[in-house]
Amino acid sequence: MSDNNSPVTIIPEESCWGYLASQEVGRLGVSSHDVPEIFPINYYVDGESVIFRSAEGSKMDLLALNKNVVFEVDGWTDEGGWSVMVKGIAERITDEDELARARKAPLLPWIPTVKTIFVRVTPTIGISGRHFVFGPEPKQA
Amino acid sequence: MSDNNSPVTIIPEESCWGYLASQEVGRLGVSSHDVPEIFPINYYVDGESVIFRSAEGSKMDLLALNKNVVFEVDGWTDEGGWSVMVKGIAERITDEDELARARKAPLLPWIPTVKTIFVRVTPTIGISGRHFVFGPEPKQA
Repeated sequence: MSDNNSPVTIIPEESCWGYLASQEVGRLGVSSHDVPEIFPINYYVDGESVIFRSAEGSKMDLLALNKNVVFEVDGWTDEGGWSVMVKGIAERITDEDELARARKAPLLPWIPTVKTIFVRVTPTIGISGRHFVFGPEPKQA
Repeated sequence: MSDNNSPVTIIPEESCWGYLASQEVGRLGVSSHDVPEIFPINYYVDGESVIFRSAEGSKMDLLALNKNVVFEVDGWTDEGGWSVMVKGIAERITDEDELARARKAPLLPWIPTVKTIFVRVTPTIGISGRHFVFGPEPKQA
């Protein structure tokens, strides 16, 4: 997917978590009957997983049907950008100790609604990242 | 999904295209066998559709398997944010007149690679948007 002359470079897997930890808003991709949806979420990185808070609603309904998700975070400047994807599963946190820790986490209170659900995204397929550089377009054939 | 007292408000459908036109980078969600993926893309709004450029590769391979997509764009300030989703189908543009118009479009040359493929996302399920306000979290039960 990349070579020495390419302006697309693969971000080493061990660096991907650092990129994820640099942002606060990412996008959760879910799919039901192969019709995908994307929800922006406020998140934090917990070890090698991602935690977000949710209320009951369309996101949780979709996750009940299919827990395979992708979580994507990207960042941009005038010169280029990067994108990291976690492909894995999303599961509601039910363990009391984990919940107590999650309630103290630095998550923005997006909506003044009681949101007692915490969800953990764990990579099963994996984590991957790419770095893009903007540049002049070459002559087309 | 919203009421007068809620900090989540539905963006009227007729305003959603204006929100889409205000940004240059969005995220394309695709799914194969209900495993979703998200790709950031540079896009522009053409009437009531979204056009982006692509090279052959993983995105086009996935679209060949399943043309149902979601295209999501969001924006954020310290006070809140918004998110607009187009749920529809993605199809490669093959009409020569359309291609000629697309080649003149204001798309950033992300990668100096010959990218002769243009793809149009047309809403079939629809377009929808929501506006979020950040606020203090209420007392939990």
